[in-house]
Amino acid sequence: MQFTPEIIQKLEAIVGPSFVFTDEETRKHYGHDETEDYNFPPGVVVKPATAQEVSEIMKLANKYYLAVVPIGGRTGLSGGALSLLHGIGMSMERMNKILEIDEQNLQVTVEPGVITQVLRDTVAQKGLFYPVDPSSMGSCFIGGNIAENSGGARAVKYGVTKDYVLNLEVVLPNGEIIWTGANTLKNSTGYNLTQLMVGSEGTLGVVTKAVLKLWPKNSHNVLMLVPFYKAEQACEAVSAIFRAGIVPSALEFMERDAIDWSLKYVDGISVTVKPEHQAHLLIEVDGNYPEILMLEAEKIMEVVEKFEIDEILFADTEDQKNALWRMRRGVAEAVKANSIYKEEDTVVPRYELPKLLKGIKEIGNKYGFKSVCYGHAGDGNLHVNIVKGDMTDENWKKEVPKGIREIFELTISLKGTLSGEHGIGFVQKNFMDIAFSKSHLELMEQIKYIFDPNNIMNPGKILPDKV
Amino acid sequence: MQFTPEIIQKLEAIVGPSFVFTDEETRKHYGHDETEDYNFPPGVVVKPATAQEVSEIMKLANKYYLAVVPIGGRTGLSGGALSLLHGIGMSMERMNKILEIDEQNLQVTVEPGVITQVLRDTVAQKGLFYPVDPSSMGSCFIGGNIAENSGGARAVKYGVTKDYVLNLEVVLPNGEIIWTGANTLKNSTGYNLTQLMVGSEGTLGVVTKAVLKLWPKNSHNVLMLVPFYKAEQACEAVSAIFRAGIVPSALEFMERDAIDWSLKYVDGISVTVKPEHQAHLLIEVDGNYPEILMLEAEKIMEVVEKFEIDEILFADTEDQKNALWRMRRGVAEAVKANSIYKEEDTVVPRYELPKLLKGIKEIGNKYGFKSVCYGHAGDGNLHVNIVKGDMTDENWKKEVPKGIREIFELTISLKGTLSGEHGIGFVQKNFMDIAFSKSHLELMEQIKYIFDPNNIMNPGKILPDKV
Repeated sequence: MQFTPEIIQKLEAIVGPSFVFTDEETRKHYGHDETEDYNFPPGVVVKPATAQEVSEIMKLANKYYLAVVPIGGRTGLSGGALSLLHGIGMSMERMNKILEIDEQNLQVTVEPGVITQVLRDTVAQKGLFYPVDPSSMGSCFIGGNIAENSGGARAVKYGVTKDYVLNLEVVLPNGEIIWTGANTLKNSTGYNLTQLMVGSEGTLGVVTKAVLKLWPKNSHNVLMLVPFYKAEQACEAVSAIFRAGIVPSALEFMERDAIDWSLKYVDGISVTVKPEHQAHLLIEVDGNYPEILMLEAEKIMEVVEKFEIDEILFADTEDQKNALWRMRRGVAEAVKANSIYKEEDTVVPRYELPKLLKGIKEIGNKYGFKSVCYGHAGDGNLHVNIVKGDMTDENWKKEVPKGIREIFELTISLKGTLSGEHGIGFVQKNFMDIAFSKSHLELMEQIKYIFDPNNIMNPGKILPDKV
Repeated sequence: MQFTPEIIQKLEAIVGPSFVFTDEETRKHYGHDETEDYNFPPGVVVKPATAQEVSEIMKLANKYYLAVVPIGGRTGLSGGALSLLHGIGMSMERMNKILEIDEQNLQVTVEPGVITQVLRDTVAQKGLFYPVDPSSMGSCFIGGNIAENSGGARAVKYGVTKDYVLNLEVVLPNGEIIWTGANTLKNSTGYNLTQLMVGSEGTLGVVTKAVLKLWPKNSHNVLMLVPFYKAEQACEAVSAIFRAGIVPSALEFMERDAIDWSLKYVDGISVTVKPEHQAHLLIEVDGNYPEILMLEAEKIMEVVEKFEIDEILFADTEDQKNALWRMRRGVAEAVKANSIYKEEDTVVPRYELPKLLKGIKEIGNKYGFKSVCYGHAGDGNLHVNIVKGDMTDENWKKEVPKGIREIFELTISLKGTLSGEHGIGFVQKNFMDIAFSKSHLELMEQIKYIFDPNNIMNPGKILPDKV
């Protein structure tokens, strides 16, 4: 989209000339997130500083029928931040203030451009805990987490973003500013627009403030790495741990290749793993009483020792814990550094993980692709990195999508779904028919329509193309 | 509404003649819940046994423009189950099966007519825990809990109904049957219709199955009753407990009158309280390790001893614990047995409780009504029972609603809202303008419209009357 000087001037009048960008470099910079190798540059990049400015931008966009894409930390994996129509790319980076840490009510009010890690660290200084920890937390924005309903390693015990969002200030596509709910832990007052907004991937409005719940911070944790000779047994152990009455604060699965890649590509990890181990579980328990954590760790050992495992590594120091987490968090980055890839975000009830893993490998064999699997096993959330490697471009384009469709069909048959924490965005939208009936999708389309009748708000996301 | 023989025959053809009732006694029985003294009898009562039957009823209702009200345990406090238009009262009582307890995935699949206590007890036999415990749990239905997004005493640590609903089978007003989500702990796949349905009070569809999350059951708890000489200090202690890093599993507030009434009207409670105590906190911590619970109880004692309190009562036996809980749960019943009353379900951030309590009493003085306050202080959720006593009928009708409006204005000014766990239903709908702007309410109306264009699904609830 080519913007007229008139529109550019109007945008400059709203946010100030220093915060409107039309140069190619800036546009390209804001044209991609972490989704494959896509780049859809906005026609213009604007950086508002207040909800009022966002509101004026939305009113302008409605008047001239301009697409607007809210842009966060651009770490998304489903293409939610891509400006498909090359409209207005609205970067939320200047709205990056932690407005209030309410120690009395254990709440925090933030702007959407706050980096998740910054939020976690800042509240931790006051003895408070914001548990949501996507692997990208060092650079992703809270606004993006809300848009995608992000999870992370601690979701298994503490829940995902939606479980922490109490209230949202939202600029609706028509420019009106509303608060969706109240700053309370409970709320039975009308339809839950807060939860409708969470996970709506910037298609229903722009979040400009969020009130998030906090917990008191636990003081201790125990982290262990358990090597399994058989990958499916590692998956089986996951639900056995819960059946033993333990709720770990993290329960991560990495298959062989995932660890290998991570160890090769991420610096400073001093963990040795043996080639005969097909998979590892990284298990954490947390709490305030070290002696209780040791008891729980012993219970976990009793459970996993019923499977074919090698020696368990307990992380003795903070450095060792950090190294193990870097290894886990580095997998996606490592795969990406090495090959063109597609990342799927499959999720099933956790006991179905062994079937899912087995099925994914069989589908890969059928269509000729290799996959690297890892993820939040405690939640049944398995990330599937499909690696292009030396596959031909034609097969990559034609065969792989068929395989992905079969993988999703498998997740649905196991009572799971398409995405656990990455969202549907651009890259998965044409698989939505697998999860939802035609009339179910029409309900979603109608919801979109009542919020955004001109379809200017992040168009082309979530809902499947009309064919 | 008078039903023609033709409609009655069609209903009989759907559910069987034994499950269609037109006699006055049955209609009156299903014409009320626990909301004040209202009775709006359905024109006909039907008792479907399957989602398919519900679907056929909805199709019929749409064809003939008949109002349908799903009816649960009729313990609601906002009038959600009242058949305002005397249409089809659809009692869900026959759909009362626990379909599957999935011990592998810690999930349970239930029909909506399962009594909450039955669900809790049944899963407890397998070492599992469904934490949501409304005071009415001995007779309320899970379907009603989902409709109203019910809470209870354990919400402060474990959350409310919405936090346990993973997936819903819903019959839409047009008769179509959908599953709203997936049986997974995480889900970022399209708009969250599951959470839109929770708390929608039967106005968007009929829940016919629910998949709920469970936890492993904690084995121990410690319960204590703390008498405060000053009610506002009891409220202040609430947030001080959290600031000390403790998350109690229950934290209940009862002012003087609440306890007095309960002790007078509920049998078999052997608790003595002194007249000089203005309020009590009932505090529970739970976990698997008794020695840790004692440590936490000691920490709580340290906190509350900073206020003007009398001797703390520790419940030593299960009997004593049950007595204390009966005392707490008996308050509403006791007030109701004694006077005409209105119950408000105010909720604010918990630190604002002292201001809320003080304000409610001032407003009561201004408008000449007495109130009995108690509730889930850990959540900032204060139930306000306004007692008619010897107030004139005219003042009850004219003055009290003005006072209620001021109470709600106060909750909003404290960043709280109208209802924490009872819903808006019939009795609070005309206060919705206090919480929401006109266009915000219009969004809710449009959501209602896309689900239910003929407005047959529990009409006259939640959304304010058009004036």
